[in-house]
Amino acid sequence: MKLTDLGERKLIKRFIKKLGESKGDNLEDDCAFIPFGNQYLLLTSDMIAKKTHLPPEISAEQIGWFIVAINLSDLAAKGGKPLGLLLNMGLPSDTSVDFVERIAKGAGKCASFFETHILGGDTKENPELTLAGTAIGMVKKENFMARKGADPGDLVCVTGDIGKGGAGLFALKNNIPNKLELVRPLFEPTPRLKEGMALASSKTVSSSMDLSDGLAYSLHLLKELNGCGFEIEMEKIPTSNEVSKVVDQLDRKQSVKAKKDFTLYSGGDYELVIIVKQEKIRQAVNSVKSVGGKLTPIGKVTKENKVVLIDGGKRSQIRNLGYEHFCGKKGGSSNQSK
Amino acid sequence: MKLTDLGERKLIKRFIKKLGESKGDNLEDDCAFIPFGNQYLLLTSDMIAKKTHLPPEISAEQIGWFIVAINLSDLAAKGGKPLGLLLNMGLPSDTSVDFVERIAKGAGKCASFFETHILGGDTKENPELTLAGTAIGMVKKENFMARKGADPGDLVCVTGDIGKGGAGLFALKNNIPNKLELVRPLFEPTPRLKEGMALASSKTVSSSMDLSDGLAYSLHLLKELNGCGFEIEMEKIPTSNEVSKVVDQLDRKQSVKAKKDFTLYSGGDYELVIIVKQEKIRQAVNSVKSVGGKLTPIGKVTKENKVVLIDGGKRSQIRNLGYEHFCGKKGGSSNQSK
Repeated sequence: MKLTDLGERKLIKRFIKKLGESKGDNLEDDCAFIPFGNQYLLLTSDMIAKKTHLPPEISAEQIGWFIVAINLSDLAAKGGKPLGLLLNMGLPSDTSVDFVERIAKGAGKCASFFETHILGGDTKENPELTLAGTAIGMVKKENFMARKGADPGDLVCVTGDIGKGGAGLFALKNNIPNKLELVRPLFEPTPRLKEGMALASSKTVSSSMDLSDGLAYSLHLLKELNGCGFEIEMEKIPTSNEVSKVVDQLDRKQSVKAKKDFTLYSGGDYELVIIVKQEKIRQAVNSVKSVGGKLTPIGKVTKENKVVLIDGGKRSQIRNLGYEHFCGKKGGSSNQSK
Repeated sequence: MKLTDLGERKLIKRFIKKLGESKGDNLEDDCAFIPFGNQYLLLTSDMIAKKTHLPPEISAEQIGWFIVAINLSDLAAKGGKPLGLLLNMGLPSDTSVDFVERIAKGAGKCASFFETHILGGDTKENPELTLAGTAIGMVKKENFMARKGADPGDLVCVTGDIGKGGAGLFALKNNIPNKLELVRPLFEPTPRLKEGMALASSKTVSSSMDLSDGLAYSLHLLKELNGCGFEIEMEKIPTSNEVSKVVDQLDRKQSVKAKKDFTLYSGGDYELVIIVKQEKIRQAVNSVKSVGGKLTPIGKVTKENKVVLIDGGKRSQIRNLGYEHFCGKKGGSSNQSK
């Protein structure tokens, strides 16, 4: 059987099984976490390749920023404070030195912006431009925000604005005016580190993950892990300026579908989905506000094992769609996998 | 300027410079190390690709073992105890599921053998089979074995036997009988974790690094870092069985050159070069013996900034050769970069 017949998610399950007794016991979270005194060490690693992640329009500086940012986003989802990063690059031998230096510049800029450091790394020859980043961080055990923990009645929230990743990629693919401006939030994502740390300290969170593969994908994953369901209100989802700038260019029918696609079924937002006990919602929202961020309730956790969208009074199911490696995109229209 | 005009080592220096203020201050060791109470957290990451690291003869299980082992070797060189690993795989979409499962099996086997765990990871699509491993470990600050610290008069030692990496690769390339047996130590290296931990606890070590890129390369790097030189005695270098098995197949003239190439200028041994104060040598040797390993003095640190070989009473310079990515091999005859 080939990977194309199986898809990434099932592959990872089979891979974990084959690790045998060597596998850790926390393989289904954004980060690995290692108990260390009263802290957890958080460890995460992401690999990107030219073919699947780096369209020709992304600049070398943006590539450097991106690989650092997506790793920091995994720490953010657990409430972690970064301790540093490693950066490994596989480079074709005809790569220009200037290109590599500009990647370093972008990576350094992102690390500095989030008050952390590139601690090491390596370069290797590879026919395909491939970058692997590793981030290490820490969080007090009592503050750690796991994916598991959501209960019926809890409120579902998101940080920031949603849909910018999908809108940006759509703009790029469809040559929308100002496409390079519209795609900037996708190429230079802002990991929600300060929001994550503030939420972790507030001890209001029952479940958390990052939104790199889209809202629909994340909710279905949390549904499976927590044995619950979700009811999401379309009107409450805060959509980004990029979404309206793109949908305004489309005719009415297209624009309704596109807005839903960008908001629900597209990746690349690097926001957090945060689930909070109802009685703590004000405290959670204020904790994010206090660091200059935004946390918006968009629905609630339900007993029924379904992910439901309420839109204009109508109920429909949110499908389990998102970009899946090896299978390509399954449904949706504009995806960017992390 | 292209990477082929510059080579890997100079590239890394330029890369570090461009990181700007975000760069950590320990970028020239086997691992990044992060102060954490009375410990250092050790963090290392290595990437391998099919074209440059994985000849067709290596099995999927061996690929899994290899990526785990080479990362553990970096921890070993610092005296670290592993806390776990992450594994990221970039896979062509026509890869068979069985192949990936066998990589997992090999990776799990290696992690279990060294009493550690695969804590997480990911799979992504990549036209080139590419693996990135990350290892995290810890060591008491007072036991940490840095690359810097060698002083004239100290003794240079190696763990285990040298030359097996070069001999194995030569056997493979030249179709020597039993080549798959001869190349096994290269494909399934044994990181010297228990030796590293024993040496670290013995507090006898003034400088340490792993030998993944060959003895000559490592000595030249230590020479630069420590502002010293080395005098190595050829007769004292413990060579592995694979070396004699291969050179026995060659004529006399070829065999002398090949033995030197395997011992000095070939990578893939994953032994440690350990520099010890003269008065502590017995204690260092015994600490390694007590865990079933072997530590052999092969020469000494000198004031003069040269790496000298004494062979049959004659003195010659050991050249700064080893595999270098982007430039290909520079001199020597059989190299395998880490």
